[in-house]
Amino acid sequence: MADKAAAKNRFVSFFDKIADELLGELQKFNISDEAVAWFKKNLYYNSVGGKLNRGLSVIDTYQILTGKTELSDDEYSKAAVLGWCIELLQAYFLVADDIMDASKTRRGQPCWYLAPKVGMIAINDAFMLEASIYLLLKKHFRSEKYYVDLFELFQTVTFQTELGQLLDLITAPEDEVDLSKFSLAKHSFIVIYKTAYYSFYLPVALAMHMAGIDSAEDLKQAHDVLIPLGEYFQIQDDYLDCYGDPAFIGKIGTDILDNKCSWLINTALKKVTPEQRAILDENYGQKDGECEAKVKALYKELDLENDYLNYEENVVGKIKTLIDNVDESRGFKKEVLTAFLAKIYKRQK
Amino acid sequence: MADKAAAKNRFVSFFDKIADELLGELQKFNISDEAVAWFKKNLYYNSVGGKLNRGLSVIDTYQILTGKTELSDDEYSKAAVLGWCIELLQAYFLVADDIMDASKTRRGQPCWYLAPKVGMIAINDAFMLEASIYLLLKKHFRSEKYYVDLFELFQTVTFQTELGQLLDLITAPEDEVDLSKFSLAKHSFIVIYKTAYYSFYLPVALAMHMAGIDSAEDLKQAHDVLIPLGEYFQIQDDYLDCYGDPAFIGKIGTDILDNKCSWLINTALKKVTPEQRAILDENYGQKDGECEAKVKALYKELDLENDYLNYEENVVGKIKTLIDNVDESRGFKKEVLTAFLAKIYKRQK
Repeated sequence: MADKAAAKNRFVSFFDKIADELLGELQKFNISDEAVAWFKKNLYYNSVGGKLNRGLSVIDTYQILTGKTELSDDEYSKAAVLGWCIELLQAYFLVADDIMDASKTRRGQPCWYLAPKVGMIAINDAFMLEASIYLLLKKHFRSEKYYVDLFELFQTVTFQTELGQLLDLITAPEDEVDLSKFSLAKHSFIVIYKTAYYSFYLPVALAMHMAGIDSAEDLKQAHDVLIPLGEYFQIQDDYLDCYGDPAFIGKIGTDILDNKCSWLINTALKKVTPEQRAILDENYGQKDGECEAKVKALYKELDLENDYLNYEENVVGKIKTLIDNVDESRGFKKEVLTAFLAKIYKRQK
Repeated sequence: MADKAAAKNRFVSFFDKIADELLGELQKFNISDEAVAWFKKNLYYNSVGGKLNRGLSVIDTYQILTGKTELSDDEYSKAAVLGWCIELLQAYFLVADDIMDASKTRRGQPCWYLAPKVGMIAINDAFMLEASIYLLLKKHFRSEKYYVDLFELFQTVTFQTELGQLLDLITAPEDEVDLSKFSLAKHSFIVIYKTAYYSFYLPVALAMHMAGIDSAEDLKQAHDVLIPLGEYFQIQDDYLDCYGDPAFIGKIGTDILDNKCSWLINTALKKVTPEQRAILDENYGQKDGECEAKVKALYKELDLENDYLNYEENVVGKIKTLIDNVDESRGFKKEVLTAFLAKIYKRQK
């Protein structure tokens, strides 16, 4: 655990270098100091302060793939740049998502668009966070033979995430509850596209390109485990939103109040009698604590907790079999995948 | 003129192919029909309906550079794809700008974020318009040796435009008038970054890559004329906002009401007496017709129209000299630049 904290500290400190480089690009253009200061605040406010799991897993995965416990400065720097590129991608999404969801706080502070003087300028700030990814890729990887792979991977995953976000937004608008739009199939699409690609597949695929273990077959092996793993992670998230301990999670779940297309509501919809369905239609997605309590009571009646536990054992079994069958002959390693699974299985936060 | 209309019609018809390709990409992902229909509406609503000058000039420039009046189907298709990529970039910016500026209409219809059911989903829609550019580049240019150049050019120009937009947003927020933040130097930066790069340099540079006339020297020659030309175009826009004939322009200017960092106000600020400055401080950027009239009267008193005409003769003279000195020995052609200048000089809309 001390190692883990040290790794995170090192990664966080590295962000100063990233920020300096990006600010240096702005200064080349001779833009006013006021604009440079604004961009600096945008970068720090929105990129740092999260758990950084996605960024850190680029470095972890690269170490596993190469079997190196100590990386050279150049290797660490490259892996850390790729890790921060994912964190910038995440920052880009979150700044925008918070506006689209009318959220109030993020990581214990006001959402960026609610910070003093920001407002809708946050949209352009989100754009600049995304553009920063490609500035960094160009600066650090232009001479590598996998440069094109990196930028196409970022582009594809960005588009996939936006597709997931689109389906989520039109399936579950906060102000118009229509449970007939929901289904477990849509839920699966949304979580895979909106979360699994950029959170699970992207960090591993980046590390694989950097390590030169990036044949189409190996990328597919990674993909075919990491996508169901990412889906499992998000279903767990949906479960913890309702059944988790707020003291562990650090927030109080609001999925029922917010009309979220969650795994729980979709599983409930499959099991309900017409009478129970009427209760859901009436109470789901209402900004009202009593309505929320009625939905929660019905979840209990339906024993969704048990459905979740069955789902979990089942999916983890399948994922373990997939990992067992991974072919390591071209250099890919099962350990990359077992490390991810270990972080997730039975997590409480 | 008939030729010009035919060229525009052909280009507009080509968009159906572009849209079909992009929708085909979505269908590959097996996303719901509702989401496909949404994306289709986003594409058509926001990309078509403008003047399309930027997109068309990729094709024009390619024809001039290669000396071909008739392009093969493959050449036309490639140039038209690049042209539509610029129009998609513009759509991405405009969807977002309209939210940031709280605009009401665009091209004679409600802004996208004000269209029924859209709202802040427009932010994700803007993201998807941008991502479409890279899907198209990959599909049509992946095997070309200039693929990376195209990709990097779009990225760089996107970032430059966002920088210009940032400086504009923090210099001239609509609700907080502070003329001491304004200056002709800032105005110049804003218009060059926010407009000149993507509207003038980008179409020509794309056509140059496609024509294989893309040495660093030739790109610099194009850049060094097109950037001042783009600045001149925007200053003309600022001038027409106040002095143009709404019947020609198709809209009534609102720069004074909207606290815009326009060339006129910056030129006025350089000339005013302290008493006149007080009039500007009191009346500029107020949502009030009487205040606007006072600013316009002062502009007349200061004879800004004459300043503009002097500026125009001066800058056009400089641009002509720059064009005269262009070295055509590596294949670049002055005619590319004179064609642009001819479209702009003394325009009334």
